[in-house]
Amino acid sequence: MNTQPLIALLTDFGLADAYVGTMKGVILSICRSAHLVDLTHSIRPQNVRQAAYVLMTAFRHFPPDTVFLVVVDPGVGTERQPIAVETAHGVYVAPNNGVLSYVLPHLEVRRAVVLAEPRYQLPGPSMTFHGRDIFAPAAAHLAAGVPITALGPTLPELVKLDPPRLAIGSGAIEGEIIHIDHFGNVITSIGHLAWEGDDLILTPQFGAGSESVRVAAGDFRVSIGGRTISGVQPTYGRTAPGTLLALVGSAGQLEVGVNQGSAADTLGASLGDPVRVSFGE
Amino acid sequence: MNTQPLIALLTDFGLADAYVGTMKGVILSICRSAHLVDLTHSIRPQNVRQAAYVLMTAFRHFPPDTVFLVVVDPGVGTERQPIAVETAHGVYVAPNNGVLSYVLPHLEVRRAVVLAEPRYQLPGPSMTFHGRDIFAPAAAHLAAGVPITALGPTLPELVKLDPPRLAIGSGAIEGEIIHIDHFGNVITSIGHLAWEGDDLILTPQFGAGSESVRVAAGDFRVSIGGRTISGVQPTYGRTAPGTLLALVGSAGQLEVGVNQGSAADTLGASLGDPVRVSFGE
Amino acid sequence: MNTQPLIALLTDFGLADAYVGTMKGVILSICRSAHLVDLTHSIRPQNVRQAAYVLMTAFRHFPPDTVFLVVVDPGVGTERQPIAVETAHGVYVAPNNGVLSYVLPHLEVRRAVVLAEPRYQLPGPSMTFHGRDIFAPAAAHLAAGVPITALGPTLPELVKLDPPRLAIGSGAIEGEIIHIDHFGNVITSIGHLAWEGDDLILTPQFGAGSESVRVAAGDFRVSIGGRTISGVQPTYGRTAPGTLLALVGSAGQLEVGVNQGSAADTLGASLGDPVRVSFGE
Repeated sequence: MNTQPLIALLTDFGLADAYVGTMKGVILSICRSAHLVDLTHSIRPQNVRQAAYVLMTAFRHFPPDTVFLVVVDPGVGTERQPIAVETAHGVYVAPNNGVLSYVLPHLEVRRAVVLAEPRYQLPGPSMTFHGRDIFAPAAAHLAAGVPITALGPTLPELVKLDPPRLAIGSGAIEGEIIHIDHFGNVITSIGHLAWEGDDLILTPQFGAGSESVRVAAGDFRVSIGGRTISGVQPTYGRTAPGTLLALVGSAGQLEVGVNQGSAADTLGASLGDPVRVSFGE
Repeated sequence: MNTQPLIALLTDFGLADAYVGTMKGVILSICRSAHLVDLTHSIRPQNVRQAAYVLMTAFRHFPPDTVFLVVVDPGVGTERQPIAVETAHGVYVAPNNGVLSYVLPHLEVRRAVVLAEPRYQLPGPSMTFHGRDIFAPAAAHLAAGVPITALGPTLPELVKLDPPRLAIGSGAIEGEIIHIDHFGNVITSIGHLAWEGDDLILTPQFGAGSESVRVAAGDFRVSIGGRTISGVQPTYGRTAPGTLLALVGSAGQLEVGVNQGSAADTLGASLGDPVRVSFGE
Repeated sequence: MNTQPLIALLTDFGLADAYVGTMKGVILSICRSAHLVDLTHSIRPQNVRQAAYVLMTAFRHFPPDTVFLVVVDPGVGTERQPIAVETAHGVYVAPNNGVLSYVLPHLEVRRAVVLAEPRYQLPGPSMTFHGRDIFAPAAAHLAAGVPITALGPTLPELVKLDPPRLAIGSGAIEGEIIHIDHFGNVITSIGHLAWEGDDLILTPQFGAGSESVRVAAGDFRVSIGGRTISGVQPTYGRTAPGTLLALVGSAGQLEVGVNQGSAADTLGASLGDPVRVSFGE
């Protein structure tokens, strides 16, 4: 087959500089046939956790042979390791700072290495831009067919983030805001939710072990930012414009939105703010 | 021939999330050879009319076999239909909410269908992200060569937006602001204008039927935001920096700009504000 | 060989409009196989100097056969010439307004022409969007293999910008702020700096002729925005979060940053502000 290798980029570099463009130049200098797709470059600066969440919601929609190049790297140039992890759905190139710790539990990990081999880095790598000098070359070489084991020794231990708050009690669920999107939709750690008729099945996505919970959508009472919302709607347009509503977002998370408006503005919401769901009598 | 299929994307998703990147992952999972080009993702949230205008100004500059994937969709998950329209210059995949109604009058429409066939959607499409679950897969399958008629039944009726205001009287033209660009240039509904020597020929672009009008460029008096501008200039740099000037924009619309500055700031302009041109004695 | 031609785009168009997307449509209508990479489109409107700097930092990381399409063009439609310059590392398509004057001294120039041949422009080019009508078609034809000499006559003279301020005295260096990045890192004209053990070697990058200077990193005292910073650190993470520090940026420039924060905010810094380094007793 004659498929172009695919590299998906996720960073906090923004698009105001040539940092992302420069990484792409480096990749194409090594692997000219690579197809480059931007996941987003607008992760809040150094927000490893937000990047970890965004990656978790997106990876499944890419082909299994995608190389994910993830550079949210507050520790650039310090002892944190640059790594690559090969799984059944994607190869992930990133700093070992927890940014892969929400996606990897969903995947069968095959091999993980430290990017230590200078042959697969730019010569004389800088201390401040490993995206260009270490991560981009590694992704390009992997896309070009270099086996992951050539890039360095086995990774001793993967750094893990604490999962977002998600506590399921009897009649109540506690969570937090983990993302606010471009439309002002407020996305919470309460998921994964799936519709089954008029009921919602909650299968805890972060934090292992809890069992699924079934609740009638009409029984949800969502408390957030001093407001309480009754019921979960199937989509934005089912309520009047301007109305605050709860719904199941596109990644299966409990989400709070405003039809044709911004829930984040309405609520004054920030990342990390608490969300509480109660149900039952 | 061995041409890569081309898909141009136009949305209001912004680039702060992975929504656009995820749609691209979906497309490449279906049609790996697709070449993806962003028209813009910065349509103001849910502004169907602005998207319709931007699409009208851009489509001609793409190859005729381009698939345009247009997702500005305030009614996602409600009864509005997802559609695809095949024309002599482009195939358009979009919600049936009027977003195609400025571009299609310029085109010979061959077939239009409702995207109803589940085989060409992601399994179990969400209620909140049809861009990912319905529109992107449709665009990808079309790019991969699936005939449009396989995607669903014939579209009964295309939803149309009201055209932007454009009234041509004797000695006066009334219009409105339809777009404000990144530089603060204010673009109006008064077009299409073409130079002929020192005269301008106005051929009404929206709203059918009016005849062309010829006016000497020096006779234009443009009233906007409480200011009056005399004459139409060929380009920005012909006046002193900071000067407000009228010109013919790159899409043939009457435009108000400031050489090396922002007309929108100078005028306090907003989308929909009235513009009036008078000419003659 | 069967390599896709590569075109890298650098503009001040932003991403809020379809201007960049339209240029890409024009390119792909002429050279369907082109691979398009965005360097950045967020150069401050009409800031030729910032674009010149960004291009200088990025070009080396692209393959030598890259066509660079650079459109920061306050003089569009006036007498300034549209040009193309072929070098040993890249072909550059741009207005002749100085935007190439920081990159070209690093390159062996082979040929330079004025883009005068109508056959390689869109028919009836506008006066306000030469990016679409002149520059994009030229880049596409060059990428498709048209020889540069077919595009127009030899360029008589290249317009040059004044170099950024960089004065090296005994015990002191004077420079200015030339870029502020997405993270708020403040990048200065003081470069190129390279580490040699614990010393820094300064080889003046703009402004010809000065000899290299060697200074112990610990002896640097950087004065900027009313603050003085002692020493140059190897990377951000070597100081406490929130601390102002001096370091060698990824392009070899003296840079002022804040670990996990914004130096530009801390300093109230603007482009052009002075920076002074003193060293020795």
